[in-house]
Amino acid sequence: MDFASELSRLVARVERGIETHLPPADTRPARLHEAMRYSLQAGGKRLRPVLVLATAELFGAKDDTALPAAVAIECLHTYSLIHDDLPCMDNDDLRRGRPTAHKAFDEATALLAGDALLTHAFALLAENYSGPLAVNLLRELANAAGSRRLIGGQMEDLLAEKNPAATAADLEFIHVNKTAAMIEAALVMGGRIGGASETQIATLRAVGRHLGLAFQITDDILDATADTATLGKTAGKDAKAGKITFVKLHGLDSSRRFAHEHSTAALEALAALPPRTRFLAALIETTATRKT
Amino acid sequence: MDFASELSRLVARVERGIETHLPPADTRPARLHEAMRYSLQAGGKRLRPVLVLATAELFGAKDDTALPAAVAIECLHTYSLIHDDLPCMDNDDLRRGRPTAHKAFDEATALLAGDALLTHAFALLAENYSGPLAVNLLRELANAAGSRRLIGGQMEDLLAEKNPAATAADLEFIHVNKTAAMIEAALVMGGRIGGASETQIATLRAVGRHLGLAFQITDDILDATADTATLGKTAGKDAKAGKITFVKLHGLDSSRRFAHEHSTAALEALAALPPRTRFLAALIETTATRKT
Repeated sequence: MDFASELSRLVARVERGIETHLPPADTRPARLHEAMRYSLQAGGKRLRPVLVLATAELFGAKDDTALPAAVAIECLHTYSLIHDDLPCMDNDDLRRGRPTAHKAFDEATALLAGDALLTHAFALLAENYSGPLAVNLLRELANAAGSRRLIGGQMEDLLAEKNPAATAADLEFIHVNKTAAMIEAALVMGGRIGGASETQIATLRAVGRHLGLAFQITDDILDATADTATLGKTAGKDAKAGKITFVKLHGLDSSRRFAHEHSTAALEALAALPPRTRFLAALIETTATRKT
Repeated sequence: MDFASELSRLVARVERGIETHLPPADTRPARLHEAMRYSLQAGGKRLRPVLVLATAELFGAKDDTALPAAVAIECLHTYSLIHDDLPCMDNDDLRRGRPTAHKAFDEATALLAGDALLTHAFALLAENYSGPLAVNLLRELANAAGSRRLIGGQMEDLLAEKNPAATAADLEFIHVNKTAAMIEAALVMGGRIGGASETQIATLRAVGRHLGLAFQITDDILDATADTATLGKTAGKDAKAGKITFVKLHGLDSSRRFAHEHSTAALEALAALPPRTRFLAALIETTATRKT
């Protein structure tokens, strides 16, 4: 199967998983469950859940065993976007080509829908896995999403906006934690479900870190070069917000080189894993060359 | 040991547990970790973590085995207060006699500190327990805090503000989920750690539900009758916000009767448990007669 068909197959499974593993929209309170679904069903690349499924399959996971974890990580990612878009944060009106949650509903509903998706991510893992696997998955997700990683990266991102002296080291902290943490977690969780060894888990972590950095640097490049219609989110807003970005610190050419270096490093680390890594390799390659 | 000394002993353990089980304030990002500690170290009754510790001891848990779970449930409760106080929710400036998190820091920091405390609650359980106990604790907390319970209750509470036709059944949904869910979870988690049987867990759940309702009705009574200085939070604000409350629906006398009935029902359920329930019984008795 070629890369595009394989990707479509996995994305379709993620979409189906989201439909199955979220509380029905008519469950009380309906408005809250509608808002959760509105944000989660807005599409997007589904990079993180696809990584969970592809990695789990790489290590031999059968059927839909990885699907609840894939949906959990997408719930977690979506919560972070909803809260990031709120007026007190990035104050953004557009996400994935549609009004953001607080525009489509209201601020309070968006806040609670984010809280509920974060909580639901942990509920999905606790309900669908058992024994040491469940605990490993929950620990991985809670640490990647915590105050030292995902949320820590968002906090430092906000602080850097107001700090003209922010450095390349600050930016690396932000990217490693705000973006790479969850991509790392996606690969590690997939590996755990597939039964990867501790050595293989360490390799997956390295792949995730480099892939995450390549992904975020490319995001900075696209924010500076693409238009809003192509991106489905407001373009050029990082510069406008005075945010520290790779492009601002290092220029476009160096940013492209850094993105390429990190995707190459991810591919090199990946080479140590089982032979059926063709799909993951192709996915990494597209990350540094994507247009949206 | 008398009730007051026993309560002080347990509260002191909770305070020590918070100090030990939160990321140090100087961990990067320091501002985020300071905000988490600011809100968590503001004192308060510590009802939920005390219930975890007391119930675990009742069933024979040794030493500090229940402490991480007690801190986890207080992290979760504190996150819900921080988000509830935000301008887009209740917009409150005062909590436990001090400025609310978004007043002491700023809205974005308060939002992220809440997110981080919620996430940290799950991390604490995943890091400090193992096997089926860990999964049971995580499942209990995730369900009690989820979109059908804690967050669902908050959503319905907001919706009821704008709905003059809100009924006694709506108010019961709000109280059972917004307040009783976490009190139930505290008792159940304590029971799980102490090794309670499934029958005993069901009993603890019933105790928690009645205690939670008694607690919340008393809260409504105090909001209508006590002053801000005594409460340490803004008094009379429920009525001002047009919130549906027990007092508004049923009047003060009936509210006092309902509170008493629920605390009596909690005591009756408790009688089915091991004989050393004196402390829990006294704690339930004080709930319906407390002044703050």
